Amino acid sequence: MKAYALLLALAFPALAQVPYERILHAVSEPASWLTYSGNYNSQRYSTLNQITRTNVERLKVAWMYQVRAHHKVETSALVFDGIMYITEPPSDVTALDLRTGRPIWSYRRSIPAVPVCCGQVNRGVAALDDQLFLGTLDAHLVALDMKTGRVRWDVEVADYKIGNSITLAPLAVKDKIIIGIAGAEYGIRGFLDAYDAKTGKRIWRFWTVPGPGEPGTETWSGDSWMHGGAPTWITGSYDPETNLLYWGTGNPGPNYAGELRKGDNLYSDSLLALDADTGKLKWYFQFTPHDVNDIDANEIPVLLDTTFRGRLRKLVLFGNRNGFYYVLDRMSGEFLHAKQFATQTWALGLDGRGRPIPNPATAPSPEGAVVYPDDDGAANWYSPSYDPQTGFFYQNAREKGAKYYLTEAPYIPGRQYLGASRQSLAGVEPWGALRALDALTGEIKWEFRYPTPPWSGILSTAGGLVFSGDMEGNFFALDAANGKPLWRLQTGGSIVSSPITYSNENKQFVAIAAGSTIVVFTLDK
Amino acid sequence: MKAYALLLALAFPALAQVPYERILHAVSEPASWLTYSGNYNSQRYSTLNQITRTNVERLKVAWMYQVRAHHKVETSALVFDGIMYITEPPSDVTALDLRTGRPIWSYRRSIPAVPVCCGQVNRGVAALDDQLFLGTLDAHLVALDMKTGRVRWDVEVADYKIGNSITLAPLAVKDKIIIGIAGAEYGIRGFLDAYDAKTGKRIWRFWTVPGPGEPGTETWSGDSWMHGGAPTWITGSYDPETNLLYWGTGNPGPNYAGELRKGDNLYSDSLLALDADTGKLKWYFQFTPHDVNDIDANEIPVLLDTTFRGRLRKLVLFGNRNGFYYVLDRMSGEFLHAKQFATQTWALGLDGRGRPIPNPATAPSPEGAVVYPDDDGAANWYSPSYDPQTGFFYQNAREKGAKYYLTEAPYIPGRQYLGASRQSLAGVEPWGALRALDALTGEIKWEFRYPTPPWSGILSTAGGLVFSGDMEGNFFALDAANGKPLWRLQTGGSIVSSPITYSNENKQFVAIAAGSTIVVFTLDK
Repeated sequence: MKAYALLLALAFPALAQVPYERILHAVSEPASWLTYSGNYNSQRYSTLNQITRTNVERLKVAWMYQVRAHHKVETSALVFDGIMYITEPPSDVTALDLRTGRPIWSYRRSIPAVPVCCGQVNRGVAALDDQLFLGTLDAHLVALDMKTGRVRWDVEVADYKIGNSITLAPLAVKDKIIIGIAGAEYGIRGFLDAYDAKTGKRIWRFWTVPGPGEPGTETWSGDSWMHGGAPTWITGSYDPETNLLYWGTGNPGPNYAGELRKGDNLYSDSLLALDADTGKLKWYFQFTPHDVNDIDANEIPVLLDTTFRGRLRKLVLFGNRNGFYYVLDRMSGEFLHAKQFATQTWALGLDGRGRPIPNPATAPSPEGAVVYPDDDGAANWYSPSYDPQTGFFYQNAREKGAKYYLTEAPYIPGRQYLGASRQSLAGVEPWGALRALDALTGEIKWEFRYPTPPWSGILSTAGGLVFSGDMEGNFFALDAANGKPLWRLQTGGSIVSSPITYSNENKQFVAIAAGSTIVVFTLDK
Repeated sequence: MKAYALLLALAFPALAQVPYERILHAVSEPASWLTYSGNYNSQRYSTLNQITRTNVERLKVAWMYQVRAHHKVETSALVFDGIMYITEPPSDVTALDLRTGRPIWSYRRSIPAVPVCCGQVNRGVAALDDQLFLGTLDAHLVALDMKTGRVRWDVEVADYKIGNSITLAPLAVKDKIIIGIAGAEYGIRGFLDAYDAKTGKRIWRFWTVPGPGEPGTETWSGDSWMHGGAPTWITGSYDPETNLLYWGTGNPGPNYAGELRKGDNLYSDSLLALDADTGKLKWYFQFTPHDVNDIDANEIPVLLDTTFRGRLRKLVLFGNRNGFYYVLDRMSGEFLHAKQFATQTWALGLDGRGRPIPNPATAPSPEGAVVYPDDDGAANWYSPSYDPQTGFFYQNAREKGAKYYLTEAPYIPGRQYLGASRQSLAGVEPWGALRALDALTGEIKWEFRYPTPPWSGILSTAGGLVFSGDMEGNFFALDAANGKPLWRLQTGGSIVSSPITYSNENKQFVAIAAGSTIVVFTLDK
């Protein structure tokens, strides 16, 4: 690893600390964590195996860093070359020394009053060459000097005043920075953008809601496409062989008032496959046509090459907020398989092509309609993990329903655009579980129960471990094979982030944002 | 210990979880931490010895609790009967389950806009019988039900609008709650109060600034006594044999403009010995007569019975903000010995009775005068520790000066009443050290250096250890005998509190507030 880093240092003397080739080969550099999900395939799996089933009980805190946050800390750190890069709410970046946990520099951004549905959060940066890339709550994309945190360029991606905001970690691909947008709750029109990493110039934009004259516009009644949502607020995946980006999209706007937007509402609640150079749509798969329950497909697409039903296939695996786990062919978008992994009542089932049969009784109504999952979903943005050793897809599942009363949904710029009010279900305690799904069948092989629905991502490692956390503050490790709890620490803060692992000076570390604290663990002596 | 607790439970069935007798015998119950400084003698020393010089490197985080704080967390917890009681800024109390670190109940108090010099802080509660006692930022004293956190009574101690505030942990003595006041920066008139623990009725008040007709009033020119300060904002000590309270007082007001208050300004910057039943003054010792440098004596008086110069004496040890360490006879207040423990320039020396010879060059002037220490002091409220095994008095020392320019000091209710502006010294890096003083001579036996002046208290234990922390976030253990660093953890938050130790289910724990997090440590398996 050191030899490789040295080679790179020699090959790219001035401008190439994290060249594209380094991210491309991230799987052969497990000491680092170079991109949001660890790798372009988004498996959030590490081949590091110093921490194992048998020694994990010796895990202890190596250092902590306390964020000056008044908001949820959802950051997933990047780690390379002796430094950890985290984001802090609302849109700050801090570089931490891996040895001491102490800050080297911080970029602090003043944020105007941005309308946001779900907190002033940020999930991380992207790295490319000698720069870091940050999406900001006020919908800018910023390039920072990796060494100093100084701003290289700062471009407006969209107008925050009408509800556009950026909370996801960008994705660096070749010479471009891919960035999505949030704001469906405010009736934005979604898109995915690519910017030139050197200049900040926009290279392409793919509108996730087709306008007049574009294919798919017929799936929107009247002018409803104008505020059609379909946001792109969690980081997607990339397949360098096909040069395709895989990116999920969120709910159509208004979230619940389907009558205002008759039709399938493409490309909301879909997985998109886009050419990374041009942003052209190769294929799409819409999980939830005409969604009236706010069941975003803003989850992580996990790429896997394996034998499926006797044939070597390039798959994309997707644990969806709507309660179903999907296996698609990622060359064509062909639906191969789906299986329910959590309670859902919005669909009576799926047809042979994966299209749901909606349950009309669960659509919001003036009298109120109960539906599972609620609008926080059976899954959400937090990362799942695929472990090639077990063949399991680890998914944190939320077991929670709610009752929705249909309301008016006038579009007023900068105001919420929903169309229903939510009521909790009396006498029903929501809960959750970390579920190990057979990645090819979706069958639940084991589960680890939570007292309340989780918001933590999952990391699996070659040490035979699965790391995750709960809202009660526990960060823990399970046996990847059978879900047996092996270790935990009460961190004192709800875990609303996804774990990573890395290695430094021949020691493996695991890091998580817990409450307002970044906690880094390693084995004791 | 368990038998003792059971006995107490039988003897005081309904109203006596922490009867006075239990606090009185705290030294024989090291598993608990029953009063602010661990014991009425305020030595902050524990006989627990499971964690030792040789195994302390195996110390690891047992659990954490993250405070929802936007202010410094200065709390020193109480621990007994399976529960830890902490305060959270500004004036909240939380009960934590010792096994899990999870909250059992919280008391949350809305605080009006209180004028405070130094942060919306709180240092802890007192326990007595079945109640907890909290001093609030808005200068109330509140009794809470120990089991539920519900308010039993709530009395106004003083008017917060003119700058009175409470930040210290009260002291429970017999059937009374002793509580001091802060606000010299706002020209309050200081006092120490005692309240009936059952009813909240005030039993006595000792004005720390004598008014007309009272002895000592002649030490204040004109009407200056009316806003004379001499606050009592850190918890004192108690000697049950003599029934005397030992309590430090702070600076006279205005802090720097001595011309407005000619005279010695009794009882500012003094140690007071008061009868616990009546509040009558037994004796006083004024460390800094006519203070013009804001060198409060709001530090912890440490009580020690030992042979001093060949004679068994009841001593009080005092590491003073003014840079001197004092040994007094605590029966009479007789000055026995003093020695400088940190840089100071305000005094040219002390005379044979411990009275300083002021250095006129260091008094604030229109042209500006440099003085050591600055107004944060050579010491401050954070706790020292006395270790009977080594005979050392451990003192965190601050090495920092500043330049003071004399200004006007009009008294306006609720506004700062200072009389000088401060300028940092250019080109001089402040620093600090944990110093082990021979308790009888004040001689520095060893020191452990800090890169910046500390704000952490100190705990010593029978395991041969001294625990403390720094502003860089390190919590650490030193060898009590020689200061050798044995263990540390980077907690990610500045340490502005004092450590405690306790035992639960036969394991010793050490707890500290670090940044916004309560971190509890124990040995690994």
